[in-house]
Amino acid sequence: MTLGRFTDNALSDWMKREGPDSDIVISSRIRIARNLRPFSFPMLATNQQSKEVLDQVEEASRNEELETISHFEFIHLSDMKELEKMVLVEKHLISPSLANDSRNGAVMLNENESISIMINEEDHLRIQCMSPGFQIREAWDMANQIDDVFENQLEYAFDEKRGYLTSCPTNVGTGIRASVMLHLPALVLTQQINRILSAITQVGLAVRGLYGEGSEAIGNLFQISNQITLGQSEEEIIDNLYSVVRQIIEHERAARQKLLSESKHWINDRVSRSFGILSHAVIMDSKEAAQRLSDVRLGVDLEMIPNVSSSVLNEMLVMTQPGFLQQDAGHKLSAEERDIRRAEMIRAQFAK
Amino acid sequence: MTLGRFTDNALSDWMKREGPDSDIVISSRIRIARNLRPFSFPMLATNQQSKEVLDQVEEASRNEELETISHFEFIHLSDMKELEKMVLVEKHLISPSLANDSRNGAVMLNENESISIMINEEDHLRIQCMSPGFQIREAWDMANQIDDVFENQLEYAFDEKRGYLTSCPTNVGTGIRASVMLHLPALVLTQQINRILSAITQVGLAVRGLYGEGSEAIGNLFQISNQITLGQSEEEIIDNLYSVVRQIIEHERAARQKLLSESKHWINDRVSRSFGILSHAVIMDSKEAAQRLSDVRLGVDLEMIPNVSSSVLNEMLVMTQPGFLQQDAGHKLSAEERDIRRAEMIRAQFAK
Repeated sequence: MTLGRFTDNALSDWMKREGPDSDIVISSRIRIARNLRPFSFPMLATNQQSKEVLDQVEEASRNEELETISHFEFIHLSDMKELEKMVLVEKHLISPSLANDSRNGAVMLNENESISIMINEEDHLRIQCMSPGFQIREAWDMANQIDDVFENQLEYAFDEKRGYLTSCPTNVGTGIRASVMLHLPALVLTQQINRILSAITQVGLAVRGLYGEGSEAIGNLFQISNQITLGQSEEEIIDNLYSVVRQIIEHERAARQKLLSESKHWINDRVSRSFGILSHAVIMDSKEAAQRLSDVRLGVDLEMIPNVSSSVLNEMLVMTQPGFLQQDAGHKLSAEERDIRRAEMIRAQFAK
Repeated sequence: MTLGRFTDNALSDWMKREGPDSDIVISSRIRIARNLRPFSFPMLATNQQSKEVLDQVEEASRNEELETISHFEFIHLSDMKELEKMVLVEKHLISPSLANDSRNGAVMLNENESISIMINEEDHLRIQCMSPGFQIREAWDMANQIDDVFENQLEYAFDEKRGYLTSCPTNVGTGIRASVMLHLPALVLTQQINRILSAITQVGLAVRGLYGEGSEAIGNLFQISNQITLGQSEEEIIDNLYSVVRQIIEHERAARQKLLSESKHWINDRVSRSFGILSHAVIMDSKEAAQRLSDVRLGVDLEMIPNVSSSVLNEMLVMTQPGFLQQDAGHKLSAEERDIRRAEMIRAQFAK
């Protein structure tokens, strides 16, 4: 068991690298949902069935071809402590539902944590591939290769007319969800964000905040993904997302230039104050931390704040989440204790 | 003319020393109002009369005995530029009324700026003596000595029944105003200040904010002074002020202990955030600067913020006033330019 490697560090190795358009696009992600034909979907599966799914996937994962793509650790949820699960959720390596509700759940993680394959989550198999910056096509290529390896060994639930079958009808068809995490502070500050978000949903894409479905966007981070999985090919889905995100990037760049040319002192004041507060505060809740880290990140991108790397800011966003804070403390913390510890960690990080 | 000496430095030399109870009492001040019998009071005096008052006082100031008390510069208002006057007002060395409305006005300043004698202000002669910390008796001894030197040479307007005569009836009698500048952040934060201020006014004392009559208290600084000048001896006036201020000091100390014992993290967070903001902000108005400097001063007094001296904070409070900022810039500044320059000066000071 080498789980500690995945829970000790706040930031996955792949996220420390920069990617194309890294000033705005934090990461690109592909998720493929698949199920094994002989077994009921996880929600209805008996314990015996889900155990067999687990065994078949574990068996298939020992395939040599998979090893040429990346080296994986196979981790059973039953071997994890509560806080460890929380940390993996906060790192987006597993879903809250795998952490809390799965039977015979497991996850395969590769060394730099850019690939996470969940077993017995909502579907039998969920393959996730992540890349830094705007690399949605690259993430798709990787996920597609892994999918092929499993498809060659397992019998997928597939229907000629409907495509891949999934637990939730919204995933039926291609079974893929392509998503991009964007940092859009200038569109928020110039109050253009609502207009843009509403345009996005009108072209069939979905928008979410950083921490999962339904939660409000914190730290000016927005996840944009395809809604439709049926009636479009994988390539069409990805091309559509690609071209919309490309436009949003241009809008955000223009908004940043507008801030620089029309409100330079104001924006400099805002990001510098946030830097000062993060460097000195003694109590801070996670929402304020996310907002101020967003400010500082914008300041770094606008070259107003020197000597802070974007990856440190990404890391702090995860480090300052409740699970990681408690994992780091080694025990449960009250809300007030977390707010104090969060401020402490951020101060220490900024003092470097 | 050595006026530059008085306008180049934001903080008078005497204020750089610490005095008794310096953690709460910024300074103690005595002002004595006197008029010369042969001449109309300044408001009604002809130009010729006020010129003669000026000449007589200047002549009397060349007295040897005065030189043994301190060495003075005699500066005519007519020799000062507008911005220089503004700086002296902000340093409390002259009054706004002497700066703007006087005829044949002048001021005598000693080397460490602890003594300021205004000529042809509201009264012919206004002798002011200032000491750091809680030294109201010491300030009175000094003012009394200087008053004696002038009284031996000039004929004061004096009435056996009413005492010293002055332009404003509120000064008739002793003609003295004894005042103490207090920093009371903990009484403000614990919301006890209004009760205390109302008790103060009930025992015949007056309370003002930092920058003169009627202005609201900025930076949690309160000036407390005697209201009554008639029917009490100088000693009674000073004893009364002394004992009331002594009680306020104890209340502020108790409030600080209460903050430390009941809300340590909260108060530490507040003062540390203010420190961070002062160290990094790019735009700041004078009201915010005063409030945050007050926070940091409290943090220094509570030993939460190291390496900042109280005198630096006093200095910044003056440095960041509009007049000094413009004097330093060498020209007039718009409100926005002042806010930017103010933040710049504070950052530079805190970076040291």
